[in-house]
Amino acid sequence: MPGDEAPQELWVDGMERDAVPALDRGLHYGDGLFETIACIAGRPRFLSLHLARLARGCERLGLAPPAPEVLRQEIRRLAARAQRGIVKLILTRGAARARGYRVTGTEQATRIALRYRWEPDDPQLALDGVRVRIAALRLGENPALAGLKHCNRLEQVLARREWSDAGVAEALMFSSTGQLISGTMSNVFLVQGARLRTPRLDRCGVAGIMRSVVLREAAAAGIAAEETPLDRSDLEGAAELFLTSALIGLRPVRSVEGESRSPGAVTRELQRRLAPLLAASADG
Amino acid sequence: MPGDEAPQELWVDGMERDAVPALDRGLHYGDGLFETIACIAGRPRFLSLHLARLARGCERLGLAPPAPEVLRQEIRRLAARAQRGIVKLILTRGAARARGYRVTGTEQATRIALRYRWEPDDPQLALDGVRVRIAALRLGENPALAGLKHCNRLEQVLARREWSDAGVAEALMFSSTGQLISGTMSNVFLVQGARLRTPRLDRCGVAGIMRSVVLREAAAAGIAAEETPLDRSDLEGAAELFLTSALIGLRPVRSVEGESRSPGAVTRELQRRLAPLLAASADG
Repeated sequence: MPGDEAPQELWVDGMERDAVPALDRGLHYGDGLFETIACIAGRPRFLSLHLARLARGCERLGLAPPAPEVLRQEIRRLAARAQRGIVKLILTRGAARARGYRVTGTEQATRIALRYRWEPDDPQLALDGVRVRIAALRLGENPALAGLKHCNRLEQVLARREWSDAGVAEALMFSSTGQLISGTMSNVFLVQGARLRTPRLDRCGVAGIMRSVVLREAAAAGIAAEETPLDRSDLEGAAELFLTSALIGLRPVRSVEGESRSPGAVTRELQRRLAPLLAASADG
Repeated sequence: MPGDEAPQELWVDGMERDAVPALDRGLHYGDGLFETIACIAGRPRFLSLHLARLARGCERLGLAPPAPEVLRQEIRRLAARAQRGIVKLILTRGAARARGYRVTGTEQATRIALRYRWEPDDPQLALDGVRVRIAALRLGENPALAGLKHCNRLEQVLARREWSDAGVAEALMFSSTGQLISGTMSNVFLVQGARLRTPRLDRCGVAGIMRSVVLREAAAAGIAAEETPLDRSDLEGAAELFLTSALIGLRPVRSVEGESRSPGAVTRELQRRLAPLLAASADG
């Protein structure tokens, strides 16, 4: 077992257990979905948004989910056992009923819930921003899987293996057709001419919860925003650049491949609006 | 547990066990590889070829494999316990040493070995051929993963969900850019003007063991063969069409989306050459 980074709690189907059936389709095919949920003051942040995304993913994969209340209560119980933590929920299609890819329709989903320690970030990062690189690996395009937080994540694993410098926080990823998509574990936003733009995720990428919250807050603040195809030249020409994820919230980028960037007025306005939501552990 | 289709034996890291650690990266990310090995007369067929492909996959994913002799002996032992069977070996990167995609380099691979019953096929199928359809889902392109038999198989799971007619044996899959790639669980070959052609698998698809055996036997038989980009018109214009996999060997296609096909001389010659190899459970 790993050291500090091991989960503090590990539940399988609601019970303290540390193993899953070796026939699980999650293990055989990555046939499942997951959510990574920030928990503050013993409460899971944006839980309703996470559960809604999970439900949409189940619908698209044809995976019969447990009752939403079961998931909601389980995540709440797990979150409540620590002041601060990260809850990861994996929902797989469950044990294989037959050999091979075929789904019989009688599978019962397996849920694996883990709570990890979550140390507070250095607050200076939100002010100064982070350094990012550009991944050499490009994302394959598949509309059937685009947007989903599914368990087929070898592309992200390989992209994350491209660097070991702890001073580089993230790598931006492009698609096989040259579109800017996201980071390996975050979404990306650009500001161009006071307009907020984030990649459209209809061919690849994961539609993050914080991405949707930022789009909602931008609308509330009267900041024009759009989901749109973006490429390398958009990245290079952007006046401001930031990353979002359930864990980091919104984080400015201060350099891309060593080239400096500065957070600007739109980034700061959105950070200001998000701060109370992030601190108060908003539900939806 | 399922009925007849449940594995007859299930080993984790060489021991009879039915569960894997819930922290396994195979479960979290599909971070692993697998082999499906036909076993006849208690012996794993083409075992050396399977192990060589697995080793190449480990190299490309940066996954430290167990010693080849450990794998070889384990598969042989498992195969020897039944006259006939299918051994599936999954090799994952092992338990996560940290939260997130990052590989620490200290992971220890987990091996899951299963043996399933394998009923002999109706010999008429090899003569008459099988009916296939064309999958609506298209494969994403990623050279970093192309050719590998890795555990990110949601595309195949979704493509297999497109049909339930037991009379349809397989679905042919195209890539996002319109190239013919493979079946959901087999490779595909065309014959055009006495020339054997199979899709080049440098952007997606799995480079099957039987595919490599067929290419080798074609060379030995003096049949001109090539791995090349192929599209829908190549499929439509092909004089002969067949599928290959470790389990089915070589199987002619007798209809595509209801349109008839006939096995021809090249198909029959290759079937004739393969027959003794398949029956004798050749090692490499």
